[in-house]
Amino acid sequence: MLTVLDGLGDHACKELEGFTPLEKAYSSGARRLKENGSQGLMNVISPGVPPSSDVSHLIMFGYDVEEEYFGRGPIEALGEGVELREGEVAFRGNLATVRIENNHPIVVDRRAGRISGEQTRELVEYLNDEVKCSEDCKVVFKPLSEHRFVMIVSGEGLSHEVTDNDPHAEGKPILLCQPLEEAKDKKGAEKLAKIVNDVTIQAIEKLSKHELNRKRRGSKLPEANAILVRSAGTMRRMRSFEEKWDLKAACVAAGPLYRGVAKAVGMDVYDVEGANGLLNTNIEGKVSKALELLNSYDFVYLHFKGTDVASHSKNPVAKYKFIKRFYDSLRLIDDFVLNSTTIVVTGDHTTPCDRGMHTGEPVPILIASKGLRSDATKVFSEREAAYGGLGRIRGCDVMPILLDSIEKTVEYGTRPSPRRVNYMPKRLMYLSITRF
Amino acid sequence: MLTVLDGLGDHACKELEGFTPLEKAYSSGARRLKENGSQGLMNVISPGVPPSSDVSHLIMFGYDVEEEYFGRGPIEALGEGVELREGEVAFRGNLATVRIENNHPIVVDRRAGRISGEQTRELVEYLNDEVKCSEDCKVVFKPLSEHRFVMIVSGEGLSHEVTDNDPHAEGKPILLCQPLEEAKDKKGAEKLAKIVNDVTIQAIEKLSKHELNRKRRGSKLPEANAILVRSAGTMRRMRSFEEKWDLKAACVAAGPLYRGVAKAVGMDVYDVEGANGLLNTNIEGKVSKALELLNSYDFVYLHFKGTDVASHSKNPVAKYKFIKRFYDSLRLIDDFVLNSTTIVVTGDHTTPCDRGMHTGEPVPILIASKGLRSDATKVFSEREAAYGGLGRIRGCDVMPILLDSIEKTVEYGTRPSPRRVNYMPKRLMYLSITRF
Repeated sequence: MLTVLDGLGDHACKELEGFTPLEKAYSSGARRLKENGSQGLMNVISPGVPPSSDVSHLIMFGYDVEEEYFGRGPIEALGEGVELREGEVAFRGNLATVRIENNHPIVVDRRAGRISGEQTRELVEYLNDEVKCSEDCKVVFKPLSEHRFVMIVSGEGLSHEVTDNDPHAEGKPILLCQPLEEAKDKKGAEKLAKIVNDVTIQAIEKLSKHELNRKRRGSKLPEANAILVRSAGTMRRMRSFEEKWDLKAACVAAGPLYRGVAKAVGMDVYDVEGANGLLNTNIEGKVSKALELLNSYDFVYLHFKGTDVASHSKNPVAKYKFIKRFYDSLRLIDDFVLNSTTIVVTGDHTTPCDRGMHTGEPVPILIASKGLRSDATKVFSEREAAYGGLGRIRGCDVMPILLDSIEKTVEYGTRPSPRRVNYMPKRLMYLSITRF
Repeated sequence: MLTVLDGLGDHACKELEGFTPLEKAYSSGARRLKENGSQGLMNVISPGVPPSSDVSHLIMFGYDVEEEYFGRGPIEALGEGVELREGEVAFRGNLATVRIENNHPIVVDRRAGRISGEQTRELVEYLNDEVKCSEDCKVVFKPLSEHRFVMIVSGEGLSHEVTDNDPHAEGKPILLCQPLEEAKDKKGAEKLAKIVNDVTIQAIEKLSKHELNRKRRGSKLPEANAILVRSAGTMRRMRSFEEKWDLKAACVAAGPLYRGVAKAVGMDVYDVEGANGLLNTNIEGKVSKALELLNSYDFVYLHFKGTDVASHSKNPVAKYKFIKRFYDSLRLIDDFVLNSTTIVVTGDHTTPCDRGMHTGEPVPILIASKGLRSDATKVFSEREAAYGGLGRIRGCDVMPILLDSIEKTVEYGTRPSPRRVNYMPKRLMYLSITRF
């Protein structure tokens, strides 16, 4: 069971008498795991490099993101329940408010006053009718909650290696979508960038004329008169987690990004009543669902977003209380599960409350398993993890360690191929003596 | 002096009041080394990946096994004193007992009742006369001790990338030898697999007709009526340890695999009376031989198998006593040697007594040298090694550290170097709407 407390790692906080939220939350629930395991510090990528959440999860699941990652857009779209076809390029998007200044559209509100999902639906369907794609390609908008949508571009010869038009800040002009400097398919990226820029301009022209925006102007509400798009990615089929590791896998997560990552690697994704990816989520319900799933799955990925939410709002007290509630829920783990399951508690990155953003600092990781050595440390915490038995690991080490704990590895050296940790002959064929 | 206590790493054992065998064995002999050195944890390959012993040693000796490792068969053959020519494919083999069921030979005894070496010699020489190789290749059997032999296949266009016919369990049918899924030379592997399958069938046919098996049937002894082969490898000349590191190297080991690895890298291999690769080996004799060799060699590799033997039979008390005996023998090291020699004590992998198999957990390593920094830890042990001065290293770090301790390294910096971590977009350009 891999439990990810998003943005878990932190700094010592004066609001917590110099403890980190994780240290302050330490309690009997955590102690039961700690006594059974080793802790360490994990740089998911490498020291000083802050990972984004989707990439971080893929690495921990054992994927080579250089080869296999196809961009965040499709992952979020999948997580929102949008169906994508192989080869389609997906962007996440916001309806936004802009004012025009010297021919530049300047972003006034990145969320158009958090316009309702109903109005967003009306506006993006209008865009689907009105916006014409200038090339031999097709653009479709799909509404999500509030101001959010997905923009899907399909056609031949496109590459998603383009920049966002979203300046990610208010008071700034919408950016020109451009091929990334390091784009491998420059021509495909140029083609897509041209489409995005053209569609952005058309959308601004069309949206300002829509009846609904006329009404919003009248009611002094911010108009939804522009589209901001970001995180282009091309939908591709990834090798599933089960194909890769021969482990049937399920996910319990509420946040769309995490559900999307799980879907992208073919995990079955489960809902829990009252789970919402926020601080007031149903922690016990999620833990209890994960434990139930252990009966029918080999691997359960359990994600909590509350820790990261508290970190981004620079609230160490809320973060500590959230971790405490999680620890309290660990009493649901009975001794049979504790003794027969490898249980991991970690984060996908560090989000210290004093900085309120992802940093490149390592995250603490605790691996409790009867199959592995336990260490001499007492408290699961950022500071003790620095001299724990797991030492300093990378995200790509997680799956090999978990497979080792359940005896799913094969000794390296008995076969000519190494890096494949899980080499097992697929077909056993028997010698048949027909001559007898 | 590199001392490898095979399968050294372990877990806390209830039979040892919660200590690991290494912790429990700690005594004055070890203290003399520890005071002079630093410890750490070593993942010979990477976290979670259990290495086989031959590969682990090659990595610690500084070899790139991806490029240079040629398979276990020839290494074991070399260790047994069998001479091999460049390009020959060698398998380790057992004479075994099978019964035929629906045309499948089912393994009844993998060692044919541990048939004597003398009888094995008679049977494999009979096979050398009777078995015909179906292709333009040649098959030769060489007897070893008891039921063991080496099977050598020579000829053009062969690749050793094939599976074992040995099911490694009794009650199972002999397996069809097949090309490995990841074989680079599929054609060569197919050719070899075809030979192995054909020879296996011929051997079963011929052996059952041999006079000796008729007699064994009469005496109710298990017949030696089949061959099981495993660990194919192609003999290739490796760059010698001395060519690689400019150090004249010797080996003191009794186990054939370890002697084979040493021979494969051109070390001189020495015998010691009473040394046998078992728990009751002559520990003092081996340590004393290694110390003597330090007078004429730059590098001495000293191997003990007892620790691993105890681990595989899940006997932590025997393991602790073996380590204790080894520590006691360290009084043979005089102050001159202690002050002038880099002395390493480590394992090639972890074999915890509770699991009885190689795991991917790191092994403790102690490097004592006047040329290197010593650390603040007190006891050489798995748990203290987690925060020792060597930190977490890989097997490939061993030789550089040893060379550094004796001032045989060159400063790095005269060559261009790696990784760009910090990609940031160079130009931000703004969208301009000229149509307004």
